[in-house]
Amino acid sequence: MGTDQAPRGPRPQVIVVGAGFAGMAAVRELRDVDVDVLLLDRDPFNTFQPLLYQVATGGVNPGDITYSLRAFAARFPNTRFRRAAVTGVDTARRRVRLDSGADVGYDYLILCCGVTANFFGIPGAEENARTIYSRRAAIGVRDRVLSNLESVAQGRDGAVEPVVVVVGGGATGVEMAGALAELRNTGLPLAYPELDPQRARVVLVEMADDVLAPFEPGLRRYAADALRERGVDLRLGVAVKEVRRDCVVLSDGECVPSAVTIWATGVRAHDRVSAWGLRQGRGGRIQVEPDMRVVGHSDVFAVGDVAAKVDGAEPQLAQPAIQGGRHAARQIRRLLEGKPTEPFRYRDKGIMATIGRSDAVVQLPGRVRLRGFVAWAGWLGLHILALMSNRNRLATMANLAVRYLTWKRTANVIMGDPP
Amino acid sequence: MGTDQAPRGPRPQVIVVGAGFAGMAAVRELRDVDVDVLLLDRDPFNTFQPLLYQVATGGVNPGDITYSLRAFAARFPNTRFRRAAVTGVDTARRRVRLDSGADVGYDYLILCCGVTANFFGIPGAEENARTIYSRRAAIGVRDRVLSNLESVAQGRDGAVEPVVVVVGGGATGVEMAGALAELRNTGLPLAYPELDPQRARVVLVEMADDVLAPFEPGLRRYAADALRERGVDLRLGVAVKEVRRDCVVLSDGECVPSAVTIWATGVRAHDRVSAWGLRQGRGGRIQVEPDMRVVGHSDVFAVGDVAAKVDGAEPQLAQPAIQGGRHAARQIRRLLEGKPTEPFRYRDKGIMATIGRSDAVVQLPGRVRLRGFVAWAGWLGLHILALMSNRNRLATMANLAVRYLTWKRTANVIMGDPP
Repeated sequence: MGTDQAPRGPRPQVIVVGAGFAGMAAVRELRDVDVDVLLLDRDPFNTFQPLLYQVATGGVNPGDITYSLRAFAARFPNTRFRRAAVTGVDTARRRVRLDSGADVGYDYLILCCGVTANFFGIPGAEENARTIYSRRAAIGVRDRVLSNLESVAQGRDGAVEPVVVVVGGGATGVEMAGALAELRNTGLPLAYPELDPQRARVVLVEMADDVLAPFEPGLRRYAADALRERGVDLRLGVAVKEVRRDCVVLSDGECVPSAVTIWATGVRAHDRVSAWGLRQGRGGRIQVEPDMRVVGHSDVFAVGDVAAKVDGAEPQLAQPAIQGGRHAARQIRRLLEGKPTEPFRYRDKGIMATIGRSDAVVQLPGRVRLRGFVAWAGWLGLHILALMSNRNRLATMANLAVRYLTWKRTANVIMGDPP
Repeated sequence: MGTDQAPRGPRPQVIVVGAGFAGMAAVRELRDVDVDVLLLDRDPFNTFQPLLYQVATGGVNPGDITYSLRAFAARFPNTRFRRAAVTGVDTARRRVRLDSGADVGYDYLILCCGVTANFFGIPGAEENARTIYSRRAAIGVRDRVLSNLESVAQGRDGAVEPVVVVVGGGATGVEMAGALAELRNTGLPLAYPELDPQRARVVLVEMADDVLAPFEPGLRRYAADALRERGVDLRLGVAVKEVRRDCVVLSDGECVPSAVTIWATGVRAHDRVSAWGLRQGRGGRIQVEPDMRVVGHSDVFAVGDVAAKVDGAEPQLAQPAIQGGRHAARQIRRLLEGKPTEPFRYRDKGIMATIGRSDAVVQLPGRVRLRGFVAWAGWLGLHILALMSNRNRLATMANLAVRYLTWKRTANVIMGDPP
């Protein structure tokens, strides 16, 4: 049942807001708990965010990295899905207000609605740069990059030179720049023979002196060298002052022409979170106690990217979100059993970033450091395993394998319907 | 090079307008002919039309039935692709005018730009019905069907009852109605447990007394029975008088409520063809001589759905288009060698239509008739083989196989980004 049309059952109601890594982990963990779960999300599908840069470069189908949330909910007898955005949280009455105008009661609430791009107030960034934090946005980047190439190849009047500027040298920016460089190096000469490949450029701008800050210096240098080898124009130690329609102004005064600017500098909570009346910290993250309950609320949890522990925030990655979602579900079970909550302890499973075909960096806890093909194979296997369903796993594996084996020959990309 | 930016080479220039079955067959056949080929299409990709109904029901990825035309052209050293619509044909000066304003000269022209839906002037049909003749349109149907289900499941005010009316009982209509019935029978109970499956209905309206007119009576009856068994509300011998926003008015006076109306009654040439000054026949088809040259023009061929021979039109199917495209290319080779043209002889390879999972009808030349699972397996194998690239073939096979094996359990569908 779990919706406001149906009478509230005798079982406690848990509402999970957001069906990303954290929300899905919570739903899975609540499977055997004697509660009714209502899963809410603005989209009717879950998005596997780590492969959005592949969607943005035409490498995988949008449908291969998304999974129907109704199909997901159907796996759990105690769970229902409803497509809705949360517009308000009434913690006193324990009700959540939805964009449809309806409101729904809860006994426990898990907030894990993720984050969005942080433009840090840079002039023009929000208006003129694109992001790849949602499937819609990634498809938009793909269609824009490909129509720009077509316009330039046709020599159309007003076609902007095919330069993509990626702002931000974290994992998102590095993966995007690496994939674009590959499109340029391998795809362009085949698919756009009338275009001088030298005209197409990929620029990566990073304020720090290194890419991939969370990695140790050796891997950072390796990644920077690997990007440069692929022809990425790496601008380190330079900030972005302004983003204009067709150029990016850097702190050293240079104005880099840009047909597509991709913003990957960092994230912040969605604006609507601030209407919920919860205490927020840096980047708008909801502040939580060590047990992941929102400060001042005994029945509201916040986990994943949107939450930050007052005693030290976890990194905004898939693993802390998955572990956090699971933790919140377990604490609800404990509370229902009359037990006290436990603090959340994040178990670091390591970090990885891919630079391109057959090349990645992996940093595991302890001393294990991988780079190159071995790291990439590990990255590939882990990502495919993590995809949501058998369906996606197999199809994505087929897609990526065929792409890996044939792409140098075929240069096929997945295309949208740009105007 | 083959575009107007480049000087015309010494080799004869062949322009192929439209990259469907006919256009791609022509390009392939011209591979070893000493000509420069310019392939034009409004879209940057080829669409495998026979599986559009699967896109429209969330069964396959749009990207799995489309193939980059630049990647296709890259396989043929004498071929270039350009994304453009043809707005005019100047047969006297042998030039083709493009929507960009440019015009391009040709020595031989192959027109194979396909067809679009024919609304036969039925009031409201063009405004209120949807088609599945393009990828964009099929995605639109999918998104509309799924958002309607979500609205109804949420009990939103003004949500139209989940009834889909398919108009036209040819192969397109039958395949669409069959796939929708499956979505209703298998997917709905799992994914929309709050919705009474009886409320969701699929209605198929056909003016004739039978579905699948080109098939022999035994297979027609088999298909009708199979659709009824799947719960399709079959209305035979009834015409559509009017299509309104939320209902379809039949010739017997009944007004069938309809959340989504799909128009599959037949096809006609695109409007822009009439501006080309060529003789057109029924359904706007360009009239061609037995050798597939346009009546009155010795250097212009028309093949595929858009063409009709004055001595008897071929059916508007993939096979006549493929054979026609190949034929036109061969005739150009003959003309260049100073030989006379040959008449086009269509070799009938049979017809097939799928009704649903494990069920289809196949009618081969001679006496071979197949129905049920064997027919469906044949249909599946043939369609997968026909998909354009290794990439698409493998990924689509994986997609369809996993769907076949797991769908009853998972009910996963591919979803778009409806508002």
